Amino acid sequence: MISAEGRRGPGATLARGPKPPLILDNGKECPMLRTAFSRLKNTFRRFLLLLVAMPMLPIPLAADEGMWLFNNPPRKLLKEKYGFEPSDDWLLHLQQSAVRFNSGGSGSFVSPDGLVMTNHHVGADALHKMSTKDRDLVVTGYLARTQAEELPCVDLELNMLMSIEDVTERVNAAVKPGMSAAEAFQARRAVINTIEKESLEATGLRSDVITLYQGGLYHLYRFKKYTDIRLVFAPEQDIAFFGGDPDNFEFPRYDLDVCFFRVYEDGKPVRPKHYLTWSREGCRDGELIFVAGHPGRTARLNTVAHLEFLRDRSFPFLLNKLRRWEVLLDVYSERSAENRRRAKDLLFSVKNSRKARLGGLAGLQDPAIMQRKLNDEKALRQAAADDPQLKQSIGDPWAEVLAALRTWDELFLKHDLFERSTAVMCEHYLIARHLVRIAAEDQKPNAERLREYTEAGRESLLRDVLSEAPIYADLEQIRLADGLSFWAEQVGFRDELLRKALAGKSPRARAAELIAGTSVADVAFRKKLLEGGPEAINASTDPMIELARLLDAPSREVRKAYEEQVEEPLRQAYAKIASLKFKLYGTDLYPDATFTLRLSFGTVKGYTDQGRHIPPFTTIGGTFQWAAEHNFQPPYNLPESWMKNRERLDADVPFNFVSTADIIGGNSGSPVVNRRGEVVGLIFDGNLDSLVWDFVYSDETGRATSVDVRAIIESLKKVYKADELVAELFGQSSRGSGN
Amino acid sequence: MISAEGRRGPGATLARGPKPPLILDNGKECPMLRTAFSRLKNTFRRFLLLLVAMPMLPIPLAADEGMWLFNNPPRKLLKEKYGFEPSDDWLLHLQQSAVRFNSGGSGSFVSPDGLVMTNHHVGADALHKMSTKDRDLVVTGYLARTQAEELPCVDLELNMLMSIEDVTERVNAAVKPGMSAAEAFQARRAVINTIEKESLEATGLRSDVITLYQGGLYHLYRFKKYTDIRLVFAPEQDIAFFGGDPDNFEFPRYDLDVCFFRVYEDGKPVRPKHYLTWSREGCRDGELIFVAGHPGRTARLNTVAHLEFLRDRSFPFLLNKLRRWEVLLDVYSERSAENRRRAKDLLFSVKNSRKARLGGLAGLQDPAIMQRKLNDEKALRQAAADDPQLKQSIGDPWAEVLAALRTWDELFLKHDLFERSTAVMCEHYLIARHLVRIAAEDQKPNAERLREYTEAGRESLLRDVLSEAPIYADLEQIRLADGLSFWAEQVGFRDELLRKALAGKSPRARAAELIAGTSVADVAFRKKLLEGGPEAINASTDPMIELARLLDAPSREVRKAYEEQVEEPLRQAYAKIASLKFKLYGTDLYPDATFTLRLSFGTVKGYTDQGRHIPPFTTIGGTFQWAAEHNFQPPYNLPESWMKNRERLDADVPFNFVSTADIIGGNSGSPVVNRRGEVVGLIFDGNLDSLVWDFVYSDETGRATSVDVRAIIESLKKVYKADELVAELFGQSSRGSGN
Repeated sequence: MISAEGRRGPGATLARGPKPPLILDNGKECPMLRTAFSRLKNTFRRFLLLLVAMPMLPIPLAADEGMWLFNNPPRKLLKEKYGFEPSDDWLLHLQQSAVRFNSGGSGSFVSPDGLVMTNHHVGADALHKMSTKDRDLVVTGYLARTQAEELPCVDLELNMLMSIEDVTERVNAAVKPGMSAAEAFQARRAVINTIEKESLEATGLRSDVITLYQGGLYHLYRFKKYTDIRLVFAPEQDIAFFGGDPDNFEFPRYDLDVCFFRVYEDGKPVRPKHYLTWSREGCRDGELIFVAGHPGRTARLNTVAHLEFLRDRSFPFLLNKLRRWEVLLDVYSERSAENRRRAKDLLFSVKNSRKARLGGLAGLQDPAIMQRKLNDEKALRQAAADDPQLKQSIGDPWAEVLAALRTWDELFLKHDLFERSTAVMCEHYLIARHLVRIAAEDQKPNAERLREYTEAGRESLLRDVLSEAPIYADLEQIRLADGLSFWAEQVGFRDELLRKALAGKSPRARAAELIAGTSVADVAFRKKLLEGGPEAINASTDPMIELARLLDAPSREVRKAYEEQVEEPLRQAYAKIASLKFKLYGTDLYPDATFTLRLSFGTVKGYTDQGRHIPPFTTIGGTFQWAAEHNFQPPYNLPESWMKNRERLDADVPFNFVSTADIIGGNSGSPVVNRRGEVVGLIFDGNLDSLVWDFVYSDETGRATSVDVRAIIESLKKVYKADELVAELFGQSSRGSGN
Repeated sequence: MISAEGRRGPGATLARGPKPPLILDNGKECPMLRTAFSRLKNTFRRFLLLLVAMPMLPIPLAADEGMWLFNNPPRKLLKEKYGFEPSDDWLLHLQQSAVRFNSGGSGSFVSPDGLVMTNHHVGADALHKMSTKDRDLVVTGYLARTQAEELPCVDLELNMLMSIEDVTERVNAAVKPGMSAAEAFQARRAVINTIEKESLEATGLRSDVITLYQGGLYHLYRFKKYTDIRLVFAPEQDIAFFGGDPDNFEFPRYDLDVCFFRVYEDGKPVRPKHYLTWSREGCRDGELIFVAGHPGRTARLNTVAHLEFLRDRSFPFLLNKLRRWEVLLDVYSERSAENRRRAKDLLFSVKNSRKARLGGLAGLQDPAIMQRKLNDEKALRQAAADDPQLKQSIGDPWAEVLAALRTWDELFLKHDLFERSTAVMCEHYLIARHLVRIAAEDQKPNAERLREYTEAGRESLLRDVLSEAPIYADLEQIRLADGLSFWAEQVGFRDELLRKALAGKSPRARAAELIAGTSVADVAFRKKLLEGGPEAINASTDPMIELARLLDAPSREVRKAYEEQVEEPLRQAYAKIASLKFKLYGTDLYPDATFTLRLSFGTVKGYTDQGRHIPPFTTIGGTFQWAAEHNFQPPYNLPESWMKNRERLDADVPFNFVSTADIIGGNSGSPVVNRRGEVVGLIFDGNLDSLVWDFVYSDETGRATSVDVRAIIESLKKVYKADELVAELFGQSSRGSGN
């Protein structure tokens, strides 16, 4: 399944809180108060003025390619290929109906009473946190028949994009000519921190400056934030994730990967200005559809050297970590049903990332794909080289990228161990580190703070740090022991810092001691430390706080080196490459994914796999057939509710379908809409051939996978007897308050 | 579970055929035609003459420690501690009742009609090779009610140790003073190859020269070889491996990990001269027991620097490979029941090795254990330093070990990729490489051949190379693709050899092409190539043969470097350390394990784990209780045969028990006997705390785990109604020929 690696996969879910990027962006991430499109055009004009007039080349896009900015939609493409001209209202309606799940994924308002639809596997984080040994909502699912029965989520935050403002000029103006990379980084961070703070103070909205085109543009996104989210409906995991890991990222597929939440404000269901209406007819083979969602991260604009770095360094390293965690968690899970429940959400993230990354690596290791990338880059470099003025103004950004990557290679391990916390990976440590860092960062002016500790992000950060989500000491202990062992394996036992961290003990013994000795699991303890500031932190003898204090300096050191010697040089180099592309191809280009709202489009369409035609739709009947072919054995077992209602279900109802829409991890839960803006599907996955879309889009065999709205309605009616919910989706009634 | 890593774990089962060592020995491996003990004493005398007389220090052994040579048994220890004096006949009887499973494990004759007992998990390799999609003997088990129903194994070879001869003097005499390490290696190999060949020709017995004490002594082992082995009984895997991976290497335990085969010669059951009689009473808490088996490999004599090398290099590298394979095979297995069956034996080996190695690594990462090793080494070095003459004759072998390890570190990756075949790991490749190498090696005089291609080992090698064991193309393809990807991840795509191997394709595409294009799975094709010699090999256009040809030169190159620059210097250095130990402690020392027959002893004894007393015995009744505590869910489900006979079974019958006997992987299937030499149990595992026995024995909490003979009889009678088998074990009848 797809999840936003930017926040979920080996990112925030595994590493709670903002994390440094695998690729580039330190992206933070909002609906339109005013269209910033004219502003954007001005920025492009600025680039164009810098360069002499050149003949525009054809835009190097495959059909249906693109994760488009809502303030720069592919109007021309849509008109030319599909004769479709979205109005500003059409766009605004879709934009403000979409929401982002900050746990990692996408969603949308689908009723006037604040009902939000997403995937089961996006909601699973919330379901998991609400579960106990005796009530595993992930497995059993849930249906609130009245609003009183809707279950409040522990720490879930949804964001709705209100507006986009181009702040490129202001950001770039802060970086003066002649500044060193370190000075440039600090100046850039300062202005970004300040823009966000000013925006928050002016509008009261969550405000994030997003780096686009790897540094080509900076946009200020303003989000309306929702934090009172309640569970309305989730199916059983056996049908939500039917086929398990084997069928994940494959097609044909038969998954009811859907979940409904309701957004509350001031104790009442919110009445969103925009929400999507439900299609009764669904979509047809060959139909144009649109996806509004939050693709997590792509690397399509990367230079070839940068892709090689991913192929030879980042991906293998990450995959080794993922395999390590997978085995660790599999072994833990196999011990008991309760262990399985405790580790399930994390283990799913790990397995999902492992399969996605393996597919990505296979793409990077495919010489045909690399050759295509190399040809594109050669053409671009040639165009730059052919123009003396361009040559002078652009220089050789490819060499700059390569130089920055060489430094990155040297910093990589240390950065991973400390700043990404792999060496001490567990929830306790991540919370302890936040506490230690908040105390220190709060002493600095906002402009100088690390990005995740600025005033603009404080509220969301505290939701994480003070979350009441359960933490399981036994699971924590094996994760921490494994992290310490990994650290030792990487640096050897003579390492001074490691010796201090281990305090003369083995990784296992030290992990046991740390977990048994810390009070970090206690939220009241965390609050006290937060209130006590630096004095309380420095005086603390809590062993996990002590460990976080010990590792803070080396971690900051490598982060600083990364930011100043890798991140900033890469931004500057990519800004040049982006400006070159704008010059050559015009401004109808989309930036790489940044876990912010994008518009994709495509066609409902089957494909051919090893000579076999795969039709675009599967059916409910096919589900039972596929289960029977596997003797109904896990992961091909169906929940009892489905087995006993098999005869009532219409076997011909379409279940899942594929399309050419350009999506990636993070798009999970995105609504699929037709030309009228009605929901016809729900993105939840891509097929194996879509896994290379991280680097290059192709609609030959790559496909996005969706749940068909008709299967959602059929099962809600016949399996779950959720008539109130169906009525609400059809706009026929609002649900009673029930209390 | 325990398996001989020397041949099984990440060794021969994974890498078919002899493999270079993780640690030191290129060990090949034989019962006593004549006692070589006097010869051994002469060798020791030679060492003693070299050195001035020194006061003997107390032997640094823990109680019950030792994997003793049958030609140097711990007579003194047994007498002092237990008042037990084994006679030469007692020893010879036990020695010649024991057999080695060359698929990786131990066993013993337990009837006058050639019945051999081992573990289910040792027999599993044979069971797997006899299984098909429709008959999975590993899962269902099997019972031959008559000899006609006994199922012939595909390629199983058993060895019974006939004699041991000390050939140290002859081996060392071949190495002349002033020879370079390369010359020394070649001279040593030549004399070993020649000794083996001469022995084979003189006796007709399989003859292997074994390196003991990491190079301190060389013994010629002569084995009687059995190759017509038939399956008599195996229980269902659900009871043989009840508790699965979570309970593996843990205690309390409830496993019927037993299997019976019958050895045939000339189409008739063999009548072994020695076989063990069966105890009706079993053993008691506190009783002295003995184990005769084949511990695979230990590293207790390693220097601290060498242990650190294992801790920091070998183990982490191997564990990463194991985790990688585990995830690969888990994912493959989850797709269907047939996939699960195909990968099961391999996957078990991988998981078993992963858990064992993780335990070993945890021991190496424990500062207390390392400190103990360091103290021992300091004392030894001090003793050497204190004596001027010793100092001069010994030099600094610790520095020599360290220097050799530095070279090993540089060669490590290349050696693993090519000589261990990780880069192209699959059965097809391993067979192709044998074919290519046999053709080349056969052109050389026997004395100059690679160890695994000498005339002495030819018969056993051909059994492997021409095995009719099934090979599954789909499983092969994913393994090969993963190997090629691993290779690319390690060396990068610019590597010339990799580019040739990939032929312009991605690892996945190339693997598919190679497996689809090769005829190596066809045994007739292999025979033809074998008969055709070098011409046939060089003319072959079979893509797998071509790949093996391509990789042969670089693989030989790194092997040569390893043998001459690592193996030989290590042997020479360890020979000096061994001579020093003999000098200091006397000759009552046991060498590290070499997958050859050893005698261990110990006490049936519980232990205390985190304050909780663990009694030595579990019971059949406890099995049902433990299953119920896990809701009878896998891996805690019991086979139907057990569930339906639950009431008939005597709940109080002891099932498994622990003892302090010093065992390790490879000991699986070893008989446990009492003072009278009667079988009271069957070794199948050690607990978690025994996993550090790779490096250091301690009987504080470390324990060997056995199946109790009483549970074997109880279940054979009441669950399997195997009355003929029970009668045979009790020596009451020989089974009818039935045909």
